[in-house]
Amino acid sequence: MNFLSDNAAATCPEVIEAVLAANMATAQAYDGDAWSARLDAAFADFFGAPCSVFAVSSGTAANALSLAAMVPPFGAVVCHSEAHIHVDECGAPEFFTGGAKLLLVDGPHGKLSVERITAGLAAHRGDVHQVQARVLSLTQATECGTVYTPGELAALGANARAQGWRFHLDGARFANALASLGCHPGDISWRAGVDALSFGTIKNGGMSAEAIVLFDRSLADELRFRRKRAGQMPSKGRFNAAQLLAMVETGAALRNAASANAGAARLAQAAPARMLHPVEANEVFAQLGTGGPEKLRALGFNFYDWGDAGSNEARFVIAWDTPAASIDALAAALAAL
Amino acid sequence: MNFLSDNAAATCPEVIEAVLAANMATAQAYDGDAWSARLDAAFADFFGAPCSVFAVSSGTAANALSLAAMVPPFGAVVCHSEAHIHVDECGAPEFFTGGAKLLLVDGPHGKLSVERITAGLAAHRGDVHQVQARVLSLTQATECGTVYTPGELAALGANARAQGWRFHLDGARFANALASLGCHPGDISWRAGVDALSFGTIKNGGMSAEAIVLFDRSLADELRFRRKRAGQMPSKGRFNAAQLLAMVETGAALRNAASANAGAARLAQAAPARMLHPVEANEVFAQLGTGGPEKLRALGFNFYDWGDAGSNEARFVIAWDTPAASIDALAAALAAL
Amino acid sequence: MNFLSDNAAATCPEVIEAVLAANMATAQAYDGDAWSARLDAAFADFFGAPCSVFAVSSGTAANALSLAAMVPPFGAVVCHSEAHIHVDECGAPEFFTGGAKLLLVDGPHGKLSVERITAGLAAHRGDVHQVQARVLSLTQATECGTVYTPGELAALGANARAQGWRFHLDGARFANALASLGCHPGDISWRAGVDALSFGTIKNGGMSAEAIVLFDRSLADELRFRRKRAGQMPSKGRFNAAQLLAMVETGAALRNAASANAGAARLAQAAPARMLHPVEANEVFAQLGTGGPEKLRALGFNFYDWGDAGSNEARFVIAWDTPAASIDALAAALAAL
Amino acid sequence: MNFLSDNAAATCPEVIEAVLAANMATAQAYDGDAWSARLDAAFADFFGAPCSVFAVSSGTAANALSLAAMVPPFGAVVCHSEAHIHVDECGAPEFFTGGAKLLLVDGPHGKLSVERITAGLAAHRGDVHQVQARVLSLTQATECGTVYTPGELAALGANARAQGWRFHLDGARFANALASLGCHPGDISWRAGVDALSFGTIKNGGMSAEAIVLFDRSLADELRFRRKRAGQMPSKGRFNAAQLLAMVETGAALRNAASANAGAARLAQAAPARMLHPVEANEVFAQLGTGGPEKLRALGFNFYDWGDAGSNEARFVIAWDTPAASIDALAAALAAL
Repeated sequence: MNFLSDNAAATCPEVIEAVLAANMATAQAYDGDAWSARLDAAFADFFGAPCSVFAVSSGTAANALSLAAMVPPFGAVVCHSEAHIHVDECGAPEFFTGGAKLLLVDGPHGKLSVERITAGLAAHRGDVHQVQARVLSLTQATECGTVYTPGELAALGANARAQGWRFHLDGARFANALASLGCHPGDISWRAGVDALSFGTIKNGGMSAEAIVLFDRSLADELRFRRKRAGQMPSKGRFNAAQLLAMVETGAALRNAASANAGAARLAQAAPARMLHPVEANEVFAQLGTGGPEKLRALGFNFYDWGDAGSNEARFVIAWDTPAASIDALAAALAAL
Repeated sequence: MNFLSDNAAATCPEVIEAVLAANMATAQAYDGDAWSARLDAAFADFFGAPCSVFAVSSGTAANALSLAAMVPPFGAVVCHSEAHIHVDECGAPEFFTGGAKLLLVDGPHGKLSVERITAGLAAHRGDVHQVQARVLSLTQATECGTVYTPGELAALGANARAQGWRFHLDGARFANALASLGCHPGDISWRAGVDALSFGTIKNGGMSAEAIVLFDRSLADELRFRRKRAGQMPSKGRFNAAQLLAMVETGAALRNAASANAGAARLAQAAPARMLHPVEANEVFAQLGTGGPEKLRALGFNFYDWGDAGSNEARFVIAWDTPAASIDALAAALAAL
Repeated sequence: MNFLSDNAAATCPEVIEAVLAANMATAQAYDGDAWSARLDAAFADFFGAPCSVFAVSSGTAANALSLAAMVPPFGAVVCHSEAHIHVDECGAPEFFTGGAKLLLVDGPHGKLSVERITAGLAAHRGDVHQVQARVLSLTQATECGTVYTPGELAALGANARAQGWRFHLDGARFANALASLGCHPGDISWRAGVDALSFGTIKNGGMSAEAIVLFDRSLADELRFRRKRAGQMPSKGRFNAAQLLAMVETGAALRNAASANAGAARLAQAAPARMLHPVEANEVFAQLGTGGPEKLRALGFNFYDWGDAGSNEARFVIAWDTPAASIDALAAALAAL
Repeated sequence: MNFLSDNAAATCPEVIEAVLAANMATAQAYDGDAWSARLDAAFADFFGAPCSVFAVSSGTAANALSLAAMVPPFGAVVCHSEAHIHVDECGAPEFFTGGAKLLLVDGPHGKLSVERITAGLAAHRGDVHQVQARVLSLTQATECGTVYTPGELAALGANARAQGWRFHLDGARFANALASLGCHPGDISWRAGVDALSFGTIKNGGMSAEAIVLFDRSLADELRFRRKRAGQMPSKGRFNAAQLLAMVETGAALRNAASANAGAARLAQAAPARMLHPVEANEVFAQLGTGGPEKLRALGFNFYDWGDAGSNEARFVIAWDTPAASIDALAAALAAL
């Protein structure tokens, strides 16, 4: 029973069908096809605001290209010290931006607040010897499986604007956050001041496409060239575009995310005292106690150890297609630990 | 009738089936799946030599990542002045290498020779004020639809080695060259001294995956990190790997290419005097004469104008799935011009 | 007798005295000293227009930093195919810009014209597959020892503006051009639309400082960070600033350049038929005929061979301090060849 | 009375005389002069080991170029969280390396130990999602005015070698460390496994030249091109080379450093309880107590506040030429606080 990663999940039927449908007709190369042409409008409908949308092949590309369009090489990105862009992208932001720095700020449960940011940067000087912050990048849902409320994001966005920073959201699990909050997509994106969103689909039932959604459309011209230059403009663009359209137009994004979130909630309820963070999306971080990891593995559960070696912490990720029986089994096992 | 680009073609059945099959099972994320694990062996079988294979999402990424692994920022790449890496990749080689330069050399029909290279670089100095050549990059089949013979490539490879350069091949249409020559894949790759090959599938019936094939496997460790850092390591790697496997394991690569080449040959035979270059792969460059482009377009043919404005030159690309009837019609129209 | 390079010349007394004077007092570090503080005003006086001035340690740094402030990584710089930035800076523009490309245009005697540029870029497309020109960079005096007139520069600047390009001038020998033309410094800089000028002093009697002069002062904030980041902000900035002030405030720049130019003119007059380019600054390019180089070397003259091997072409550079006797001797020898 | 920075100090007579002497003769351009030619041998004498030496114009350039020659863009540099390369160089390491990351480790008094490094990197994984450490960079004397002993450095160097890392030393105040320890220069450089040393002179009585000293001479060819490309190869190289020679050949480096150290020691002895760090070089970090900063400033002392706002911490830097009377006065004032 696989709780390793939502990246291990299958592609959902809506996306598969869209890929097959995109193969039925001859189409123009690159982004000259009917699917690519429809991206902006489809996402504008979904988000309730005009936007420019670019399909890319990975979340790392979505994040790094977005940042590169917003921060100069001599600038900096403010982010959480556990942010995926810092910890898990092998320096992609540094590569795409030409060497901008990440300014790391800590906060509980993977979240930042205006106060945390202000305190974290208090010693950062404005002189020419230090790179200057230009972008705030947050993750929604966070690396700890928590979710920023619309109000929290709005406060962070307002502060970013007041500082003269742009605002980027790493939304590898944006749909999970959305399903968790039950709000409108605009409430945790452009209404909160987000300029650029990495909208993930792959972890959520997609196959090979992620989207960069620019609410600040003035960045689009630049991004177009950066994307091509990064090898992120595929010659048969229709296949990626079709996947993105399927996610937002068929409702698959929300359906899949809601399903995964529900599984995580079930696990949390089974052993609330073991939870290391509030379970607000589709990831569960748990303290298993001495011998716990071994017991669960002996029962056939696959998952990643987390935290320091020997800490007995574990991460369980529930995907859109994780079988209910597996979740039930894990919930029971957690309760029985 | 579409002769614009082989990128406009459909994905062939073998690749579609492979993608669907890859969706049947839960798999590890990134490259931890069974398809990715099989890449090296499958390509080693195909090429008859050990190699390290990496799936990427575009030919531009394949070229630029390969070059970045072989040329330092203060080095240079020797290539044809019409090379795709110079003309059509929006500076991707410069981006991925950290600013290496391309040293351009001319040659007829898109091809270089040892003599051309030697003459073209005669004035290039070895001092610290100039970047030094480190890589030779050729295109096979070339941007003019011609093909290097094994002997020509071997001579160019031997010269590269003698100069201390690595040897890269942009094989966006490698299968077309292979089908044209009827030789063994090794004859126009590692046996000719090629260190890194961008092996194209998308133009040849693929969907969204190209391969970097490293015959110099010492480059693999570095490339692994560069690929991740470039956002070219997708989180569900099995879908791209499955496509690549389908192309080389089912014979689709050669079949598709042979079909496209045959179509091009038919066009060339219909109007041999109009050909601007020998037609050796699946691209046809023709002088249509005054009024020719208009006449063909009036007959329903879509194609790109080529050369200088008003030159009446045109490019026709035949894909694996271009209907025979369309080719017949174009052949007749060319003959009748 | 040394005609190899004006970089081989001594530092002139005005600059030496300024360096010694700058050592008399304790000063703030970096640019916090009285000399650095005076740079903008002194150059504004010299040029007759407000400007922001930055001392750097080489002409390569001046050029590459200027370009980096004006062209994005996905952009391009239009320049002459013999431009120093392309031929002699080991890829510095590519390094500092993050991989922008140079678009090379040819023109006689090292000079470009609007017509040449228009024709040279005719085949360059505006689509996303090609980098787009953002800056025109010219050299004044040129790499062939010729000089653009104010009218020529104004026409080129107007065209650049019409294209939406910035305008950079590599003025490693700007003072030589100025002395040659007898015009006001503004006539061949900001009045012609120049946004950024690399103002050279080292070849002209300076020691270790070149200046970036920004007539578009909106670039200054960015350049300040790029300069620091490039290691071009020395911790005792007063010594470089003092050199630059000495050149423009004491008249040394013009005096030295006029002296060098006069020497070159004398050589040109001695053998006018041998001149490969109009001699308009302090460089003389000559056809020496078979055996000519050997004869001159046997007479004790040191100089660089130029052009292709065996072409019998030579370059003679006259510096501010080249002895009159040496020039007389070379003039006689040239006349006697 | 100026205790702001040793960068505010004058240039010492030995260096001034060397600059003037270098102006007496015509010399080849760039590094073709007699002074540049002598650099390797002079430093080999000083350090007791063969080395390749490059003059550059700032400590930032020395550090960033050294690192760029040792760490690939997808690698990382291990350093102290207060290291100058992280805190005060505006991202120069990231720029020169093409985006390598700095892995920050904490340690008391600005120093790292093998234990600190091991613990600090314990959570860093070896997989492709994270950049891998390739270089250890330490500062000697440290940013806190402390000094690594030969034994400490040797242990850190041995660990670096065991990890497969190169070893870089930021020696902006290397001479101060040397004078403090009274050891042989080799004991805190190549004998401890240092591959590349940024050897500072400017803070220590120099004018405009710092040296990169490569004990791993295999890096020299690459560095030569990187230096040119970075605009750090001045066209009149003799002036910088002459300064470096003067520092190591006349004994000025050690004399100046010893003098500055002695001044710092006097301050430390005057108020030992106020010292925040052991005073082992020429910097004094002191807790001045409430009202202390104001009192000292009222007495005419200039210095930087340090630490958090309101902490009453101060930094005093003693230069080679700080007047004894000023030091006496400050010592008395500190004692009287």
